[in-house]
Amino acid sequence: MMPPNAGTKHAARDEHAMTSHWLPCVPWVRAYTRVTLGQDLLAALIVTIMLVPQSLAYALLAGLPAEMGLYASILPLIVYALMGTSRTLSVGPVAVASLMTASTVGGVAQQGTSDYASAAVMLALLSGLLLIGLGLLRVGFISNFLSHPVVSGFITASGVIIGLSQLRHILGVEAHGNSAPELLSTLSADLLATNPITLAVGVSALGFLCLCRSQLTPRLMRVGLSHRAADLVTRTTPIVAIVVTISAAVLWDLESHGVALVGHVPSGLPAFSSPIIDSALIQQLLLPAGLISLIGFVESVSVAKTLGAKRRQRIDANQELIGLGAANVASAISGGFPVSGGFSRSAVNFEAGAATQGASILTAIGIACAAIFLTPALYFLPKATLAATIIIAVASLVDVNIIKKSWHYSRTDFIAVAVTISLTLLLGVEIGVLSGIAVSIGLHLYKTTRPHVAIVGNLPGTEHYRNIDRHDVKTHDNILALRIDQSLYFANANYLEDIIYGALAAHEEVEHVVLMCSSVNEIDLSALEALTEINLRLSELGIDLHLSEVKGHVMDGLERSHFLEHLGGKVFLHHHAAITELAR
Amino acid sequence: MMPPNAGTKHAARDEHAMTSHWLPCVPWVRAYTRVTLGQDLLAALIVTIMLVPQSLAYALLAGLPAEMGLYASILPLIVYALMGTSRTLSVGPVAVASLMTASTVGGVAQQGTSDYASAAVMLALLSGLLLIGLGLLRVGFISNFLSHPVVSGFITASGVIIGLSQLRHILGVEAHGNSAPELLSTLSADLLATNPITLAVGVSALGFLCLCRSQLTPRLMRVGLSHRAADLVTRTTPIVAIVVTISAAVLWDLESHGVALVGHVPSGLPAFSSPIIDSALIQQLLLPAGLISLIGFVESVSVAKTLGAKRRQRIDANQELIGLGAANVASAISGGFPVSGGFSRSAVNFEAGAATQGASILTAIGIACAAIFLTPALYFLPKATLAATIIIAVASLVDVNIIKKSWHYSRTDFIAVAVTISLTLLLGVEIGVLSGIAVSIGLHLYKTTRPHVAIVGNLPGTEHYRNIDRHDVKTHDNILALRIDQSLYFANANYLEDIIYGALAAHEEVEHVVLMCSSVNEIDLSALEALTEINLRLSELGIDLHLSEVKGHVMDGLERSHFLEHLGGKVFLHHHAAITELAR
Repeated sequence: MMPPNAGTKHAARDEHAMTSHWLPCVPWVRAYTRVTLGQDLLAALIVTIMLVPQSLAYALLAGLPAEMGLYASILPLIVYALMGTSRTLSVGPVAVASLMTASTVGGVAQQGTSDYASAAVMLALLSGLLLIGLGLLRVGFISNFLSHPVVSGFITASGVIIGLSQLRHILGVEAHGNSAPELLSTLSADLLATNPITLAVGVSALGFLCLCRSQLTPRLMRVGLSHRAADLVTRTTPIVAIVVTISAAVLWDLESHGVALVGHVPSGLPAFSSPIIDSALIQQLLLPAGLISLIGFVESVSVAKTLGAKRRQRIDANQELIGLGAANVASAISGGFPVSGGFSRSAVNFEAGAATQGASILTAIGIACAAIFLTPALYFLPKATLAATIIIAVASLVDVNIIKKSWHYSRTDFIAVAVTISLTLLLGVEIGVLSGIAVSIGLHLYKTTRPHVAIVGNLPGTEHYRNIDRHDVKTHDNILALRIDQSLYFANANYLEDIIYGALAAHEEVEHVVLMCSSVNEIDLSALEALTEINLRLSELGIDLHLSEVKGHVMDGLERSHFLEHLGGKVFLHHHAAITELAR
Repeated sequence: MMPPNAGTKHAARDEHAMTSHWLPCVPWVRAYTRVTLGQDLLAALIVTIMLVPQSLAYALLAGLPAEMGLYASILPLIVYALMGTSRTLSVGPVAVASLMTASTVGGVAQQGTSDYASAAVMLALLSGLLLIGLGLLRVGFISNFLSHPVVSGFITASGVIIGLSQLRHILGVEAHGNSAPELLSTLSADLLATNPITLAVGVSALGFLCLCRSQLTPRLMRVGLSHRAADLVTRTTPIVAIVVTISAAVLWDLESHGVALVGHVPSGLPAFSSPIIDSALIQQLLLPAGLISLIGFVESVSVAKTLGAKRRQRIDANQELIGLGAANVASAISGGFPVSGGFSRSAVNFEAGAATQGASILTAIGIACAAIFLTPALYFLPKATLAATIIIAVASLVDVNIIKKSWHYSRTDFIAVAVTISLTLLLGVEIGVLSGIAVSIGLHLYKTTRPHVAIVGNLPGTEHYRNIDRHDVKTHDNILALRIDQSLYFANANYLEDIIYGALAAHEEVEHVVLMCSSVNEIDLSALEALTEINLRLSELGIDLHLSEVKGHVMDGLERSHFLEHLGGKVFLHHHAAITELAR
């Protein structure tokens, strides 16, 4: 088959070869035209309309004053636009990082105090510096240890916790806690104190947003809008809920009826400030900052890659660390809290036609205008409306499918998902994600301690050797041929001895043991000593130990040791040659 | 070649098949004869003579009263004899566990107080219970994560620290600390206070023991003793040093000249007692107890296996956990401290002809007699003599060769050794061994995140495919054949994408990418999603993705997913078939 679009293939390859530099914005800034500006302006307008309520809502979720949400959506966007490699990723406050901020900062300071706000700022600073550090050291690969099932499970469980945490604003009751049981028990304890007017506002907003999400897009499409345009309009509906509920709050003086409002939001742009350095606080925040960074980075890069692939734009993971890190530092010095690349806002930015990060810079200008001119109106914004916005936004994070999918595919993946989800729900985000990482690495290591070992035989008429349990193959009584399906290293060196002696017990006529090493990618010093021991023991039993299909780089190692000098048998390049020579 | 000793082979196999049970002593107890008794009695006599000074010395090393060393050498020996699977392993106080006890207990109590002693007892109890727990859960495999280089490095560094810590007794000065720098600085600070008579005693004992070790064996052999007998006599020389220095202390009243003596040692057998349960203490001791258990277990099993192999006796690792655990619990309830299987004493036991664990029971009786009858004489034993005994004993633990060997064989093994040795020396035993474990696991994981991937071609005239960089092979311009030398899992799923896109950039004519999966022992959910993504991306570029040589159990997983439905290319059983079909 000939490739139908060889040109595209070349383009993709060239982009892959593109080297990263400190300001990945240079290419698009140089090529910026009036057309690009038009595209970016439209996207920025739509994203701004979507981002104003979201920024306020995520600040609320993080337990912070509303203005911090706006601050986190100005400078970080500009910094990422200049230093990030994605053309369409939109950075700012996101649901999971806000929840993690609330959980972490709630542990070191009292919500509503200035200590609480400055701890959140410090958290952003630490996250940023950690990300930049990882990027400079080019060790972004450590984020790979956050497996997909763990991240999916964690985000799903976080979505549930976020939803539960927002119920109190919908009901107008007191509730607190970082885990599902805490939230549920405090919610139910205060349920009788539900404020009916708050509930009416919350349920109306929730109903309106739900209805928009499920009905508006198809209806708009029926009146002639494209799917993309209809979807974009739907995304801006939270602003309608906000305008309507603000108006209601003003008209009917809802505050005097006990409806919680956002209250005074200072007008204007954030003042630059350097965070207060408190080493005890830093110690407490370091681990959570690391977790927030890693999870934010993994999500961000995954969104950036998905969008990048659609337009054949290359994402450089190490530069992303630096870009995202710089955005967090920018958030910290402009009074914001941890930020990350968000999926929904980036998707909107992309679908609205953003051509470059110019759209993000224009969005930042839009949010800045909101911070300057709209803040007086925000006084009357009911918190229940913001809670409804959050609930609708996080509903899409909950991916119950990952449980089914992992169960179906592999039990170890399922265990990792199940542990992550259940511990996140029961014990909170930090323990949840750390356990998920530990369990997935632990299970991986556990599997390598008991490698799959197959007795192999010849597929008649070929030179191939396959598992005797799966194929109809020919074996020889005097040869025990074992294919070791794992690298040999300290954690499975002992197990190898057991396997070989065990297999020998069942094969009494054996004179030759041939270890087929086609899957052995490493033999470390511990494994080498185990092999030496096995060779010695087999020699004592009058059995020769042979190796076959040893990979070049593994053979290099063996040749550097004394193992081959004492080996009872030989090393064969091909397993077939070994069997041909040794068969009786 | 015909096996020369097929009978032995059968015997070894039968023993392998032997199932473990709760009292592995039953077979040898049933078969016990007068001849066996004679062999065991001789071995017990020699081991007792060697063990009395060693037990006292290790109690001193652990910072404990001398009698605790004797107590730890009575009941634990009997319990291990009944519950362990090795016929010749000798259990009791050992150097490394004693050092670790001193380091741990020194952190929670003041040496010389009753709190110190009871913390040591608690440490033995916790170690014992942890070992039994691991054995019952059959999870002894976790000890495999202590790699051979880490254990060797750790023991070497421990030997150095032990040697340094004993210098103060030789010099008669004050010194303390758990690390080499601490010990050296406190030693040198007090060097001027050296007691010349203590120094004379210490140096004489050290010189005498050194001389015996280097000269006595060859001389005894020259007068007609066998090597074995000569070596055994040499091993008993510490008792001579002890008798001579005790006599000197009595004759010249060394105590009044400032020579530190062991002092009052209560006579008689230990009283049974249940350790005091203090949950705060338990929390502090739990991690060190785990480390002591694991290291003791690893060493013990390694000694047991080495000796077992010489007499074709099978060691069951899980039963060893239970036996060793029970020995530690026995030590705790009889006022001892953590015990383990010792290499030198087991070797002596073995060489002295011990036929069964009956020798250990007889040794325990011997030590009990010493505890009853010899304690008054121990009052006059100079601590310098015991220190000399320890220094001679640990000299054999120091294995500098491991540094050279690991450097030569593999850099990752070397890094693990270097980190373990240097951190143990600089920061103490706990941090040292934990860092060693963490570094070796970390390096292993790191290697798996960047798997070796080879472009492969056909070895002309065969059906074999080998690395194009190592062999003179034939390739096709329209096929990119990659052999992935690693299982695919979450930690390397992203790397795979980079590798494939990178390789494509260098091979422009490619229409087919064939992933040769002969070394892929697992594809987890994260890797499956990466493959799905790669397949999609390649399809967009007009390239088909194929797999070859997928192992049976990996294929089972792929078939459970939807991956194969969307795969652009095919799955080939043999790589050769793939190339034959796809070549242009």
